[in-house]
Amino acid sequence: MLKPVRIAVDAMGGDHGPEIVVPGAARALRSRPDIEFMFFGHAARIKPLLDAEPVLRRVSTLHHTEVAVRMDDKPSAALRAGRRVSSMWLAVEAVKKNEADVAVSAGNTGALMAMAKFCLHTMPGIDRPAIAGLWPTLQGKSIVLDLGASIGGDAYHLVDLAIMGSAMARIVLQIERPSVGLLNIGVEEIKGTDEIKSASRLLRENPPINLDYRGFVEGDDIGKGIVDVVVTEGFTGNIAIKTAEGTANQFARLLREAMARDWLSRIGYLIARHAFASLKARMDPRHVNGGVFLGLNGVVIKSHGSSDMLGTAYAVEMGYAMARHQLLSKIRDSLPQMGETPAGKTSPTTVGTTLSAPSS
Amino acid sequence: MLKPVRIAVDAMGGDHGPEIVVPGAARALRSRPDIEFMFFGHAARIKPLLDAEPVLRRVSTLHHTEVAVRMDDKPSAALRAGRRVSSMWLAVEAVKKNEADVAVSAGNTGALMAMAKFCLHTMPGIDRPAIAGLWPTLQGKSIVLDLGASIGGDAYHLVDLAIMGSAMARIVLQIERPSVGLLNIGVEEIKGTDEIKSASRLLRENPPINLDYRGFVEGDDIGKGIVDVVVTEGFTGNIAIKTAEGTANQFARLLREAMARDWLSRIGYLIARHAFASLKARMDPRHVNGGVFLGLNGVVIKSHGSSDMLGTAYAVEMGYAMARHQLLSKIRDSLPQMGETPAGKTSPTTVGTTLSAPSS
Repeated sequence: MLKPVRIAVDAMGGDHGPEIVVPGAARALRSRPDIEFMFFGHAARIKPLLDAEPVLRRVSTLHHTEVAVRMDDKPSAALRAGRRVSSMWLAVEAVKKNEADVAVSAGNTGALMAMAKFCLHTMPGIDRPAIAGLWPTLQGKSIVLDLGASIGGDAYHLVDLAIMGSAMARIVLQIERPSVGLLNIGVEEIKGTDEIKSASRLLRENPPINLDYRGFVEGDDIGKGIVDVVVTEGFTGNIAIKTAEGTANQFARLLREAMARDWLSRIGYLIARHAFASLKARMDPRHVNGGVFLGLNGVVIKSHGSSDMLGTAYAVEMGYAMARHQLLSKIRDSLPQMGETPAGKTSPTTVGTTLSAPSS
Repeated sequence: MLKPVRIAVDAMGGDHGPEIVVPGAARALRSRPDIEFMFFGHAARIKPLLDAEPVLRRVSTLHHTEVAVRMDDKPSAALRAGRRVSSMWLAVEAVKKNEADVAVSAGNTGALMAMAKFCLHTMPGIDRPAIAGLWPTLQGKSIVLDLGASIGGDAYHLVDLAIMGSAMARIVLQIERPSVGLLNIGVEEIKGTDEIKSASRLLRENPPINLDYRGFVEGDDIGKGIVDVVVTEGFTGNIAIKTAEGTANQFARLLREAMARDWLSRIGYLIARHAFASLKARMDPRHVNGGVFLGLNGVVIKSHGSSDMLGTAYAVEMGYAMARHQLLSKIRDSLPQMGETPAGKTSPTTVGTTLSAPSS
């Protein structure tokens, strides 16, 4: 039998804290019974919630701390005040100490990334971490990264993103050789920034293993699902995903208003309500909850701050899948081997950073 | 009585050419009877279409050329082969020669921008042109720029975009002092690139006249319509608008599929069809057709390549409004006066380019 997956949970994270996080974990456990949980946070608040979930309680340990990172703390302040003591830090540290296989938090993204970087460090061969997310498409789902871990980045960073996103795609989408596109403002080779053009050359001329590079894709191609993995630096990725969320919300709200405008519309809505329910399910952001921090020596999952129980359960299951199917080894196997310099990767900054990166 | 607005039309532009462009112009003329048209393109194809629209024919002149820029021509190739002879060039040149007040083309964006820059040059005080478009929001409409005229840009470029977008907003949205936001990956002052942070400081400390700077906005704020003008450099702007289009198309397609899945849904759809029609109208991209080229010594409007008659009419009306309400003077009035260096605008590159910019 496989060993259980050990998940460290920041019980205080998110807008709702343990009242949502604990039942969310219980729900995930019903789909994935081979999980063991470590909960970090205020014991007096968490214990009664655990007591209400006897199955969950049997596979959980509770670790008390009174310090919680707030949703509006700046990353630097969170790190200063919350290092070694906050529920967020302790969850991440459990991964570092190999007491857990993955950490999950719905806490503030900047603070979580700062702590994850500080505690886990980047993997050998990776300069900067990234956040990857699932994007619902007409074909199913795609993976988009970086959603905002770091701004900008050279061609090698974009190639790293392609490698890491593909490793994640092999797990989540169960595709052995995922198709990859670089997000650009046109599909012609002459379009885009120098970084994107040279990343495209690198991916064509030195294709990493297990990855099917398809060239440039544009903003409207993401939702069509024409590639499994969409690669972009963090500023653009963040704008893209938030713009898509905004547009989906706008459409949903206009649809609701239209269906409530008069009695005829309301009757039509009632008659077709199963169709509306299926549409809602297909666009439900909870099904794609769980941003995966990539490029660190450990797996950390960011659940949406406003997640409800179901969204939390999906984020926990995302963490389960990443640990169970060995995301980190999959990334390592696809990276150029240490010592084997990828063609052209000679920038002193890059190599220096790589060599000096702690490998703990 | 006001002088008519003279509109130069590239009749050969777009996926459909004169068969859509001429009836589209006729339709615009019905809403705006004080337009005079110059049509550029293949006379034998255009003349019968004009003959079919006697009202339009009376206010139009026809200028024959056999050269048309193709939708897939590279800008450099289009400029080489189409300069001085193509329908696109001649329409833009009519503005330069002051034979027309505005040029409209549904031809390829890159070629049109290249010709517009080459022929009209940037305005004194503006280094790089931009493309601005209307974005349907929950509040009505906002203006977003740059949608892809140039990639990147320093803080002064972003300030120029804010000034030009506000001038356009005063015309289109009829707001005397439009609210402006800088698109960023967070609303806190510490977020974003150096260019964005310093543009924000410039806008706060030296606010241009007629503009209400509101700070940073995120991707999901655009569709909420929380500001009248959203400013970003062209790479991000292009990704944002295409991602929004993609998401809207995806939602519309899923909605259609849901409404056709079984007979109950179809009945519901039929009963509520007026509601669906109103939703469709509110999200109809034709209502926001017409990208406005800003920062040049003349007004050029880019109509969507796949525009139908109604979309073309809207693009022509956009051009009409820009000329009638004097977009160029509105921009000029808001720019810091020549000789009066805006605080901190000391970058030699910027000043040099400004001084050497032809003012024809």
